[in-house]
Amino acid sequence: MSDKVRLALDVMGGDFGPSVVVPGAEIALSRHADLEFVLVGDERQITPLLAANPRVKARATIVHADVAIRMDDKPSRALRYGRRVSSMWRALDEVKYGRADAAVSAGNTGALMAMAAFNLKTMAYVERPALAALWPTLRGESIVLDMGASIGADAAALVDMAVMGAAMARVVFDLERPTVGLLNIGVEEVKGLEFIREAGQILREANLPSLDYRGFVEGDDIGKGVTDVIVTEGFTGNIALKTGEGTAKQIGEYLRSAMSRTWRARLGYLLARNAFATLREKMDPRKSNGAVFLGLNGIVIKSHGGTDALGFASAVDLAYDMARYDLQAKIRSMLEAYHALRPVPPAAPVEAAS
Amino acid sequence: MSDKVRLALDVMGGDFGPSVVVPGAEIALSRHADLEFVLVGDERQITPLLAANPRVKARATIVHADVAIRMDDKPSRALRYGRRVSSMWRALDEVKYGRADAAVSAGNTGALMAMAAFNLKTMAYVERPALAALWPTLRGESIVLDMGASIGADAAALVDMAVMGAAMARVVFDLERPTVGLLNIGVEEVKGLEFIREAGQILREANLPSLDYRGFVEGDDIGKGVTDVIVTEGFTGNIALKTGEGTAKQIGEYLRSAMSRTWRARLGYLLARNAFATLREKMDPRKSNGAVFLGLNGIVIKSHGGTDALGFASAVDLAYDMARYDLQAKIRSMLEAYHALRPVPPAAPVEAAS
Repeated sequence: MSDKVRLALDVMGGDFGPSVVVPGAEIALSRHADLEFVLVGDERQITPLLAANPRVKARATIVHADVAIRMDDKPSRALRYGRRVSSMWRALDEVKYGRADAAVSAGNTGALMAMAAFNLKTMAYVERPALAALWPTLRGESIVLDMGASIGADAAALVDMAVMGAAMARVVFDLERPTVGLLNIGVEEVKGLEFIREAGQILREANLPSLDYRGFVEGDDIGKGVTDVIVTEGFTGNIALKTGEGTAKQIGEYLRSAMSRTWRARLGYLLARNAFATLREKMDPRKSNGAVFLGLNGIVIKSHGGTDALGFASAVDLAYDMARYDLQAKIRSMLEAYHALRPVPPAAPVEAAS
Repeated sequence: MSDKVRLALDVMGGDFGPSVVVPGAEIALSRHADLEFVLVGDERQITPLLAANPRVKARATIVHADVAIRMDDKPSRALRYGRRVSSMWRALDEVKYGRADAAVSAGNTGALMAMAAFNLKTMAYVERPALAALWPTLRGESIVLDMGASIGADAAALVDMAVMGAAMARVVFDLERPTVGLLNIGVEEVKGLEFIREAGQILREANLPSLDYRGFVEGDDIGKGVTDVIVTEGFTGNIALKTGEGTAKQIGEYLRSAMSRTWRARLGYLLARNAFATLREKMDPRKSNGAVFLGLNGIVIKSHGGTDALGFASAVDLAYDMARYDLQAKIRSMLEAYHALRPVPPAAPVEAAS
């Protein structure tokens, strides 16, 4: 990587496309002077936005793409009409051919997952990529994966996720030996699903130098921030993430309604408005926007589709960190260290079947 | 059932045993004059508490039991030393032999599940009981099941849970045709796990008169209260419940900390304290304490182990409603109506293998 960090942005992704992506890039540039962008999308929509976003104008090149992936298409359909020609695919191409250090898209998650796996391929040892998100906790933030990149897992997949998540924690939190927990429905070793217990045993016995395995954690431990990394299968991870988000919204709603019911409450609210602002900021989902696909030959960041420029800028910040502190090298070396310990050699690469 | 509702209380269950259960029963009696109790546990610990709880004293009989199930024992171990002799088992006996309309225990969940299934047996058609909880939502409350009575499920088990959950909703919410959703990671019919899609298809095609199937719901739909009943497999349900609880605690912590940081915030808090009291009440887990085992030959309610008298009283209220409005008959008739529709006859009862 050069001294610059160069990010490919799928400008057409998300509910608002260029009108969010370009201003989001502008905000991120104000925080990272060493950023450069490749804006991939419809040139006619991008160019008019550059006047109002002078930093982007000075630091970006445009790669035109005619096709935009729709937010509600099935992955198979998106691949059919979007392969090679869509802004999403071409943003990934920038990473694949070394012209960008990472790609960021607010587009259709399933399509992004499918295109990224298809175009960039998974790393050695990794069967399926995982989607890792930053989860705000009482201690700061934790990394939770998989948030739904794939459904179902076995013990080996959970262990790979633990290793990849710990690599990401080293980058994001700057830790030598991040703590890792496996999400389960009880903390006792005898509890929960067989494949989770098996993964726990593998992690405990491996006793890796770059990963401090702490055993099982439960749903209410996530918000406490008991470990830096929490690993779970994709279906459960997605349900947990959305349930947490839903609960936060629900309490915000209760709070708004309680604070507007009487004049005393409204006056109290006015007096304490800085405190409420702090609270709102802590609960602001835009601040932790951006999830990382781990296990691909290239860094790919997924932004929420419905976010605004501030939220998109967070996803760009995340991409910047992942590229600047070399997530890929850390994942590779940790995966190799782990698989070198294993009693059985890694499976030979399968013949291309797709 | 007589004109009284008679509940068997496992007085030794929970972290605090009689010192919470007896005062909890006293509170519930102040709300339901037609309640009677069978207090099952150590007579020497129960009797001294009756003076301070005169309503209970007037309306309860004591069934002595020497053995109390410990909160951290594995179910198999609890069954070994607690079968027939423990307060938990004997509270279930009261239901089994028709001397009580329901049993309430704040004891060890796994042990209660095992003893209840072993002692009361499951209803016809039901392979495994499910644990259903009341979840506070923006619309009021929803019923979510299974909260972890068993791990893993197939389509048939999810459909049975939908039917049983709807029967419970008819009792708790007094609805003719409760709405039901299946928890999944996308609302589109093509998404998620195979057995969930299959359950959705069965429910849609059955089009039951007593259950309005509304399709898939996501984690963030639970707090919105989009359906009266939300059905999921036990592992995921437990993770969702605890993640929601954890998020609520986390936000409460943020709020406390924000409101005490400056004098303006503290003053604002004082002015708005009635509003905060309302909020606290809405978020009070004691108010929705109590989960119901569905699918057993008898009503069994599980209270949180760590709750206080007010929380235990909520679990008693729930038991009262379930018994008073005849949950069991509603579940039976709905299960029969559903299975009568099925193209294949129900499986013949298996030979007792245990």
